[in-house]
Parts: sequence; structure tokens; C-alpha cells
Amino acid sequence: MNTHGRERERGRGEAREPALSEDDLVRRIRAAAAGDRDGVLVGIGDDCAVLETTPGTRLIAKTDLLIEDVHFRRRYAEAADVGWKALAVYISDIAAKGARSRWALVALACPAATTPDEIDAFYVGLLALAREHGVAVVGGDTSSSPGGWFVNVMLLGEATRAVLRSTARPGDVIAVTGTLGRSAAGLAVLEREHAPRDLDPDTLAEMTAAHLRPRPRAAEGRWLGAAEGVSAMMDLSDGLAIDLPRLCAESGVGATVAVDAVPIAAGTRRVAAAVGRDALAWATGGGEDYELLAACAPEAFTSLAAGLAQATGTALTRVGTFERTEAVRFVDDRGREVEVARGFEHFVTGR
Amino acid sequence: MNTHGRERERGRGEAREPALSEDDLVRRIRAAAAGDRDGVLVGIGDDCAVLETTPGTRLIAKTDLLIEDVHFRRRYAEAADVGWKALAVYISDIAAKGARSRWALVALACPAATTPDEIDAFYVGLLALAREHGVAVVGGDTSSSPGGWFVNVMLLGEATRAVLRSTARPGDVIAVTGTLGRSAAGLAVLEREHAPRDLDPDTLAEMTAAHLRPRPRAAEGRWLGAAEGVSAMMDLSDGLAIDLPRLCAESGVGATVAVDAVPIAAGTRRVAAAVGRDALAWATGGGEDYELLAACAPEAFTSLAAGLAQATGTALTRVGTFERTEAVRFVDDRGREVEVARGFEHFVTGR
Repeated sequence: MNTHGRERERGRGEAREPALSEDDLVRRIRAAAAGDRDGVLVGIGDDCAVLETTPGTRLIAKTDLLIEDVHFRRRYAEAADVGWKALAVYISDIAAKGARSRWALVALACPAATTPDEIDAFYVGLLALAREHGVAVVGGDTSSSPGGWFVNVMLLGEATRAVLRSTARPGDVIAVTGTLGRSAAGLAVLEREHAPRDLDPDTLAEMTAAHLRPRPRAAEGRWLGAAEGVSAMMDLSDGLAIDLPRLCAESGVGATVAVDAVPIAAGTRRVAAAVGRDALAWATGGGEDYELLAACAPEAFTSLAAGLAQATGTALTRVGTFERTEAVRFVDDRGREVEVARGFEHFVTGR
Repeated sequence: MNTHGRERERGRGEAREPALSEDDLVRRIRAAAAGDRDGVLVGIGDDCAVLETTPGTRLIAKTDLLIEDVHFRRRYAEAADVGWKALAVYISDIAAKGARSRWALVALACPAATTPDEIDAFYVGLLALAREHGVAVVGGDTSSSPGGWFVNVMLLGEATRAVLRSTARPGDVIAVTGTLGRSAAGLAVLEREHAPRDLDPDTLAEMTAAHLRPRPRAAEGRWLGAAEGVSAMMDLSDGLAIDLPRLCAESGVGATVAVDAVPIAAGTRRVAAAVGRDALAWATGGGEDYELLAACAPEAFTSLAAGLAQATGTALTRVGTFERTEAVRFVDDRGREVEVARGFEHFVTGR
């Protein structure tokens, strides 16, 4: 851990003092992160994590910034939810390569007025998911932020083969895991002052959990990554209508999606009806579902779907076909092209 | 690259529109980062970097957040300087493990009003240093920030042996590379409205460059990491008076430092005299020098210093001895303990 002069800036005569010293925080994080240390030669406490990789395996690295009011809102999300989701989105990325998440480094910046309990709660949420997935937190850093919360997680994974998003082939089946639109349904519920009437508590809880505590498809990604017949894969973080064109552009292919085939949970449809919104728009444009989008060899699709369901309990649904053309088209049951909501447009019109 | 819903938030009807689309930025960064791809199976363009590690080597990972007005100030630092320094501080950390920096992932968040030229300049500065050190930028992300600039760099390095900060032994020589206090001298110059009179332009340029574009001791770290007789190592980012106690705490040793032995450049002393400040306070408490602090077996020190000078041109100076006691003491030429400035105190009194 390294503060890059944080302690100096802290002393600039500002009225607000941090609630914990840097060293207190290091100790808390180190204690909280103790656990599975397989493959970790050095974890928290030194400048760097020292990791032992297995010969013949691939190391997979992922990092991003998550920013309050850009990527998450503290208004709906408890600190523990923020911690959970910060790691979940990276486990999802690593899973989409067919890889196993192994080691995480975490950097958190929060306003000086943040309480130690909130910082603890952030790590409690993050470490709960880390334990579920056998991820060791091997490094971290906490800074004061002049604005809101900023979270950076760096996640390293290993795989014997990494499935890319650039290798889909014309004729491959477009397949998605699970159902789409639950996260957007959950956000729509969270954004309301009062929960919509006529909705059962279980549905409400399922949808808000899908938004606040998404469950990355880790086992599904590893299973599909190891299976024969999966040509390409990525996770759906920005919605099918944004992410599918990205996969197509990287692979140099087009796509046709049958909107009627897009899997939408019954609960998502109930929430959409209750709040007067369009469930399909959530499914194509809502984003943050963290389901997997895969290109599957057509002759392999049926056995892939059966095998995935047997191994993980998760459905793999055919929603369309990759094409030789460059266009990405969404069509109705009569083959007519339809406009679907993209993440961007959804939130312009939807708020 | 993954935007985690950035595009949606961008569309929330705010008056300021980003100057570039996400995809434009990805293309710019990808083009800018093209270059040395040794060991990179997949770089920018997929969700994750896929890296090939060499069997028998150690992978070293480092990540942190750098925050405007906490870790750097745009008031003095051009965007290119911010990019340079963001990578320099991590190369320094990796070097302090005796490792070679190999792959970087970069995440940048800046206000929506930031111009494409500023973002380009950030990467120009970062990539200039990356090229000098043979570092491949294999991933990245750009977000909009509700506040100032936030930079996250994740750097991976490899080494056959990682030198830790927890393995100093009583009796070892406390040694530092180069000279200390130049970065603080440069900051003192940058903070003034007018450059101090009576100082030659070369000294001013050297000191401000030391602050804005520090040169991490990469070759020195690798050389010391491979040499016999180096027990422990870390880089000096927060100043000797903060970092040495950290190394001692991790190693379970104490230290005695002779303040007269602390190497201070003549230019640093001239700046201190010109602005009425204490050069020793800068050297012990200024921080951000990114020199290396090493524990050396006493019988090996002379040959280590000679060998390092011959291999890299950089001096290795003995400033004290690690002790069996837990105390970290700074003493004058008569052995009396003296109070020295710590980073924290320096900036409280110094502004």
C-alpha cells in the first residue's frame, strides 16, 4: 500500500479530519482480507502483490474505475452493496473470458467525512462475494476523495484458454445466459419513492437484488469457456443493444436478433407493467445484467444449452444468428426490423 | 474496455456533453498504445488483457488511485505530466521489488468538459514513459468524473525473485539511491507565483522536472534485486521519515539514521536557501522522490554501491543502520536524536 503523499495533503489545514489513519485502514483491510491465500506469495502489507502463476495457464487482468453518481448511487446502494458490485462486475468480465477469478487489488477513495463503519461495510460486501468465488484480496489502498466515492478494483484471473469477443463467426448462434432486464427493473423500483403496489415482496426483492448485488456468471463462464463450440464470449454490462454491436465489430460480423426470443423473467414483466414501462426496452437497453453473451457453433448449441443447464442450472437461450453482413438488426416475429432501446436512449427517455 | 453504464449516465439530460464518444476514446487509446506487444496475447479491445507469463517468474501487480488535488494538482501539472507521473509511481513500486514492469492497464475519469487534446496529452505523457521502460499498455477505460481527474493505473511486473520490505535484518546498512528532497524543492518552486531570483534556470528546470516527471529507478531496482546482499527494498514515495518506519515495522527492526549522511543535491540546497526553507526537511519529509530505500548486508554494501554506480551511474548512499530495537531514530553528528520533518508535518507548516 502506498499513499502517494496522501498524508501530506491531509494536513493542509482543512477542517475535516479523516476518521481513521492510513495505517489503521491498512490493518483493517489486511485483517478483513485474510483468508484463502493459495498462489499468493505476498498480499497486503507490501508495495505489490506477488502472485504465483501456474505454468501453462493464462493470467487475465481487468481494472476499471467505478464512480459515485456515474456508475453507482449511494442514494440506493449501501456501502456493502457498492463493495459487492465493485467486485461482481470484474468477476463477470473474467468469467466471460472463460477464466477463474483469483486475485483482487482494491483502491477506494471516499470523502474525509466517511465513517469507519461505512468503509468496513464496503469491504464486508466485497469480501462476501470474494469468498463465494475463491478470490483473494491481495492489495489495496484507501485515499480521501474531494468528491464522492471512487472505487477501483483490479482483478486477475487464470485460464488455460481465454475466450475472446473477436472470434464470433457468421452462422454462429447468438446465445445469452439467464434473463435480461432484471437489473433495470430493480433500478426502476429503487428510483421510486414508494414501491409499486400490486407487486409481491419476493419479486421486488429479486429485482432490487439483481441491481444492487448482481451474481456474476462465474461457473457458467468457466463451463462455456472449457466447452467445445463456443467461439466468442463477453458479458452484458451495457445491454444487448450496445454490447452485441461491440462483439460484432470486434469479430467483423453482423447479427440478427429475434426480439421475441430475448429471455425476460416473469417478474421483470410484472414490474414493467406495474410502473408503466417496457420490459423489452429494459432487456435490450437496461444494462448491468451481467449475463453472458456467447457465439456458439450452430451444431453445438443444443448440447451446450443442455450441458450448461445440467452443470449450473442456468439456461442458455438462442436469441439470433451472427451474419456475414456488418449490420446488427433486431427483428420481430415477421422478420421486420424494429428499433430497440439502447442503454443510452433508455436512460434519456426513461428518467 | 467496459463502461459500466457510463453511456447511460451520460444521457441524463445534463447540459455538458462529453467531447468524444467512448468508442472514439477506445480507438484513440488503442492506436496510441500500439507498440511493444511482447507477452501480450490480448491487449486493448477485449474485456480483459490476456498475458503470457514465463514459467518460473513472479508476476507483480500494483494498483492505486491518483486523485486531483489529493495526489496531484492540475494547476502546476499539464495533462502530459499527470500521465507520466501516474505511470512513474507504479514503475517505481515494481522496481523496488527488483522486478521489471511489463504491462499496464489505465483507467482515467475526467470531467465531461475535458477536451480530447487534454486526454490525448495524458496518454502521450504516459506512453512516453511506458516506451522508455518497455511497458505495454494492454487495457484501459475512460469515464466521466463528477469532480476532478481520477487516474488509476494497474501495473504488472515480472521478476525471478521479489525483494520485500519485510526482510530487513538488524545490522543491515540503510541505503538510498540518488538524492532526496528534489521533488519537494520542485514543488516549492511550482507553488510560487514567480520563480525565485538568484537561481539558475537549469536548477529550476531540474527541480520542477523531479516533481512533475520523476524518473523511477527501474534499472537500479532490477540491478539491486538481482544482487547478492540486498535484504529488503521499497521506494520512497512519502519521504524517508514515513517510509523507513514502515519498512522497519514490516521487518520487525528499528533504525538509526545519521541526518548528515542523507544525500541532498546542491541544487536542492540552493532552492531551499533561495526560498527560505530547510533542505533536510525536504529530504526527510518531502516525499515523491521515488528513490529506492534498501537494506544491505554490511559486508556487501561497498561492492553494491560500486556495482550500482558502474551499472547505472546512480549513487547508493549509506545513511544509517537497522537496529534490533523497534525505535526509528534520526541522529546528528554527535549521536543526539533530532526531530525531522515528516511528510505530514512538512506540509502543515510549509504552506
